[in-house]
Amino acid sequence: MLLGKVIGTVVASQKDAKLEGRKFQVVQTLDMRGQPGSSYVVAIDAVGAGIGEVVMYASGSSARQTQATNNTPCDAVIMAIVDSWHLAGETVYNKAEEG
Amino acid sequence: MLLGKVIGTVVASQKDAKLEGRKFQVVQTLDMRGQPGSSYVVAIDAVGAGIGEVVMYASGSSARQTQATNNTPCDAVIMAIVDSWHLAGETVYNKAEEG
Amino acid sequence: MLLGKVIGTVVASQKDAKLEGRKFQVVQTLDMRGQPGSSYVVAIDAVGAGIGEVVMYASGSSARQTQATNNTPCDAVIMAIVDSWHLAGETVYNKAEEG
Amino acid sequence: MLLGKVIGTVVASQKDAKLEGRKFQVVQTLDMRGQPGSSYVVAIDAVGAGIGEVVMYASGSSARQTQATNNTPCDAVIMAIVDSWHLAGETVYNKAEEG
Amino acid sequence: MLLGKVIGTVVASQKDAKLEGRKFQVVQTLDMRGQPGSSYVVAIDAVGAGIGEVVMYASGSSARQTQATNNTPCDAVIMAIVDSWHLAGETVYNKAEEG
Repeated sequence: MLLGKVIGTVVASQKDAKLEGRKFQVVQTLDMRGQPGSSYVVAIDAVGAGIGEVVMYASGSSARQTQATNNTPCDAVIMAIVDSWHLAGETVYNKAEEG
Repeated sequence: MLLGKVIGTVVASQKDAKLEGRKFQVVQTLDMRGQPGSSYVVAIDAVGAGIGEVVMYASGSSARQTQATNNTPCDAVIMAIVDSWHLAGETVYNKAEEG
Repeated sequence: MLLGKVIGTVVASQKDAKLEGRKFQVVQTLDMRGQPGSSYVVAIDAVGAGIGEVVMYASGSSARQTQATNNTPCDAVIMAIVDSWHLAGETVYNKAEEG
Repeated sequence: MLLGKVIGTVVASQKDAKLEGRKFQVVQTLDMRGQPGSSYVVAIDAVGAGIGEVVMYASGSSARQTQATNNTPCDAVIMAIVDSWHLAGETVYNKAEEG
Repeated sequence: MLLGKVIGTVVASQKDAKLEGRKFQVVQTLDMRGQPGSSYVVAIDAVGAGIGEVVMYASGSSARQTQATNNTPCDAVIMAIVDSWHLAGETVYNKAEEG
């Protein structure tokens, strides 16, 4: 999985039938220090993540292992909302301390 | 998924039998601000996308999860036509406003 | 899929039993303008492509969706020989016009 | 598989139900000489690896081939703790000799 | 598949139970001219390759399509030992001519 921040949404009314009702979110990938880079992915949201939230996403066939994505042409899924992460004893991110 | 723009087509009469009748489109990948880069993919079209349209495509085994691509040697599929996308409250792209 | 040019062959007599009789070809990846880059893949040929031909190849699990590659440890397959491709109304490549 | 060092943890209480109880670890990828780079992955731990340990991780669908990850939306798993590795007769890393 | 050279081994006694007895080899990726680069993969050996040998390896789910790797958390397998490879009529590598 990679860490990312939900920064936007994609609206697509004309899509594969199995994707009806799915929510497409633009996730900007974060490096391990929490810095955003230039890469992104459009992921289906399986956990109710909102704009601005830090999340984890899974790619490839593993992205189909949620109820929201099962058997769909989806290669990226938000499968967790991040509370906090810690490197070498230091807290890099803590949702509770964000504004 | 990634965002892309359909910029061309590939014609291939000699191909795996399961690909008979499939439409191969050249999709140029867009970054999250809608800028085209140098990367591309040839994708099978599952939603009737035309040249110039902005689309989403899925890669890998997930690309086989449409009727057009099921059980075929296809690793990229156009699974949605994009109406619009939005970052941080700003509309990056809106099909209705294009020329 | 990506576009590539068949530029060589690999001979490997000692290999997984399921790969017996398969033809391994070195495919140099082409960019969307038809320019060769430094990346390549060794692919199993499922369509009878010869040296110098422009082809499409599929990667990952989708590479196993041909008769030549089914159930084999193969992650890249040539699944089509390209007749021509076209970008923005311009013909980038046309096999019939090659020497 | 790639070699990595466990450098941190991610806490995520809101996640796909199938991930309940899983341990998410931040793994910094090592090059073949054991030098850390800027890339990382968040992996589920299937072998009880602790912070600071050198491990191997598998990506993609193969990451679901452990008891801890079976049928889950997980695309990276720590599947081994490294005792040592050796290049051209030289020991690059030996856990027993670490402090 | 990609071409690589076996340059080392990894020892890991604590690992997923399904990997018991497997041989982990460090494979340095070669470019199409046979030059080694900085990228590598740790692969399970399915064909009895030794240190110094030039091999082909498969990645992803295809890496599980050998007896040595079936149903294991393995994303890279050495599935062939290379005898020779040839580009544009020129022999880039010939095992029989190596020292």
